[in-house]
Amino acid sequence: MELCFLGTSSGVPTKTRNVTAVALKESKGKGWFLIDCGEATQHQLLKTSLTVNNLQAILITHIHGDHCYGLPGLLASAAMNHRTEPLTIIAPKGIQDWFEATQKFTQLYLPYPIQFIDAESLPSVTIGQFTIDLTTLTHRVPSFAYRFTESTIKIYLDFAKLAEHNIPRGPIWGQLVKGEDVVFGDKVLKSRDFTYYAHAPRRIIIAGDNSEPEKLAEFSHNCHALVHEATYAKELAEQAKEYGHSYAELVARFAEKAQINNLLLTHFSPRYQTDPNADTSIEQLRREAAQVYRGQLFLAQDFTRYRMDTQGELEQIFEG
Amino acid sequence: MELCFLGTSSGVPTKTRNVTAVALKESKGKGWFLIDCGEATQHQLLKTSLTVNNLQAILITHIHGDHCYGLPGLLASAAMNHRTEPLTIIAPKGIQDWFEATQKFTQLYLPYPIQFIDAESLPSVTIGQFTIDLTTLTHRVPSFAYRFTESTIKIYLDFAKLAEHNIPRGPIWGQLVKGEDVVFGDKVLKSRDFTYYAHAPRRIIIAGDNSEPEKLAEFSHNCHALVHEATYAKELAEQAKEYGHSYAELVARFAEKAQINNLLLTHFSPRYQTDPNADTSIEQLRREAAQVYRGQLFLAQDFTRYRMDTQGELEQIFEG
Repeated sequence: MELCFLGTSSGVPTKTRNVTAVALKESKGKGWFLIDCGEATQHQLLKTSLTVNNLQAILITHIHGDHCYGLPGLLASAAMNHRTEPLTIIAPKGIQDWFEATQKFTQLYLPYPIQFIDAESLPSVTIGQFTIDLTTLTHRVPSFAYRFTESTIKIYLDFAKLAEHNIPRGPIWGQLVKGEDVVFGDKVLKSRDFTYYAHAPRRIIIAGDNSEPEKLAEFSHNCHALVHEATYAKELAEQAKEYGHSYAELVARFAEKAQINNLLLTHFSPRYQTDPNADTSIEQLRREAAQVYRGQLFLAQDFTRYRMDTQGELEQIFEG
Repeated sequence: MELCFLGTSSGVPTKTRNVTAVALKESKGKGWFLIDCGEATQHQLLKTSLTVNNLQAILITHIHGDHCYGLPGLLASAAMNHRTEPLTIIAPKGIQDWFEATQKFTQLYLPYPIQFIDAESLPSVTIGQFTIDLTTLTHRVPSFAYRFTESTIKIYLDFAKLAEHNIPRGPIWGQLVKGEDVVFGDKVLKSRDFTYYAHAPRRIIIAGDNSEPEKLAEFSHNCHALVHEATYAKELAEQAKEYGHSYAELVARFAEKAQINNLLLTHFSPRYQTDPNADTSIEQLRREAAQVYRGQLFLAQDFTRYRMDTQGELEQIFEG
C-alpha cells in the first residue's frame, strides 16, 4: 500500500509544488485511487508509473479550483488513452454539475461511463481493495475527509484449531479459508473459528481543507496514517481560521491526542519555501509540529512516496 | 515583437510538450497576449519571464479542452497574484458560458473584471499595440484564426518635403508628426504628406485547429508570419481530414502559394516524437513541409522563442 503526493501547494502552483492531488495505491496489483485533482495532475502522472487506465476511482474533497481543475483534462486524456472501464467519482454535487457543464460547453465526449457519487449522501462504498467512508470538515465550502479501510485481507487457516477438532485436510479447509461455514457431521464449522486475518485492516485518512482537525476525533479511531493540510504556521493562526485552514501545530496537537502514528502534512502556502535555507521555509512548519507530536511526522513534497507495511508502519521510499 | 510557444502538443500533454498555448509579446514594454490556454499553461509561465499581471488579453481559438482547460486556473492565479486590471477574453461564446459555470460551481471569485468578446461578432478591436481581427476556419467546432497587426508604429518627419515646401521648424512639425493636419497660410498641410512610417505594420496570424489552410488565402495578405497546426504527416491525410486537422505538406503548400515568409508549425500529434532519432519524429513533418515551402520554416517546441524585427524578419532566439 503506497501514498504518492502529486501536488502539495495550496492555491497556486509553484516551480517545485503543484496544486493538490494524492495517489493511494492498493497493496496488490496496479489499482490506485486519486484524491483531489488540481490542474496539471495529469502532467504530474506522466512523471510516475501510475496510469489512468488503472485508476479505480477519483475522490474530490471540495469544490475549490486548486483541488479539481485538473479533472476535465485528466478524464479527456484517459479517453485518448483508450480507457473503456467505468470510473467512479466521489465528490460534492457541485463537481458533477461543473463537469457536466464542461462536457456540454467544450464538447467533451468520454467513451467510458462515469458514475458520480454525491459525497453528501455516501454512507460507505467498497471499491477495489478499500472500503471508503467520509466525514465532514470545516471550511468555507463543504469539505470532506475520506477514510480508506483495507477490505481484502488475506485469511489463513488456524491449523492448531483444525487439529484440535479433528477436521481432516480436504475440500472443507478450502471452504473455511474462503469464509464459508461448513456442515461437518452433526456440527456447523464456522469459518471464523478456524481462520484468522493476516493482519488488522490498514486505515488511512486523507482530509480536505479544514480549520478544525478535532472534527476527525472519532473518525480517526484505529487510523494508521492521516494526510492533513497545514497551510500555515501558527503565526498566521488568525488568517488560517479566516480562510478555513489549519496551521501546523493545530494539526499536530490533534494527531498527538488522537494517537495517530503517522502524520503527513501537505497543502503548504507558497510562502513556505521548499528550500530549507530560505527565510520562510516549510522547516518552520516541521519544527512547530514536531514540538507537540511524537509520532512519525512527514512533510510531503511532490513525488514523495510512502509505503505502509501490513502492520501499518509507514516509511518514505527513496529511489536511486 | 516576440512569439513564445508554451505548448505544442495536440490533444494530450507529453513529457516534453504541453497542450496548446502561444504568447505574443508587444515590441515595447512588457505587455503580451495569450492565444489559447491549454491545461497547465500557468505552470509553463512559471518557467518564463511572462507574468499574468502584464497580460493584455486572452484569445481562444475554439472550445476544445486542449485549448482552454488552463483558463480557470490561470485566471484564479492572476487573482492570487493581486491582478486588478480588467482583462479582455476573445473567444467563442461557449468559453464564456463554460467559464461562468466554472465560477458558479467552484465558487471562483475574481477581483478584476473580465470582458468577454464573442469571437463570432468581432469585426476588429485594438488592444495595446495590436489591432486584432479574425477569420473562420474548418474544424469539428467553430475555430478561428486571429490576426495581429501592429497599430503603434513610429512616425518620422520627412525633412526633405518640409524643406521643399518651406515649412519652418516649430509647433507645426510637432502637429504633423502626431498625425494632425495643419492650416498653414492659405493651405492645409496633410500629415501624411510630410511624414512616413518607420516601417510597414508587422502582421502575424495565429490559427486554431483547421483542416483547410486555403481558408486563410485572402486573410493572410501582407502577413509576415503564420502559426498553424500540423497535427499529422501526409500519410495520415485522411485521418487529418476526418478530425478537422491539417498535415504538414498541406499547410506548407498553402504558405508557399500565399507567399508567407515565415511558417511556424505546431500542435503535433504525440505520435511524432521530439527526439529526431525516434522512429516517428517531428523531423518527418519538417522534411515533408520543406519539400514544398521555400520560406523560413520553424517547428515549434515548448519554450522556443522567435523575435520579429521591424522589417518582419523572424529569427529563433537562443539563450545561453
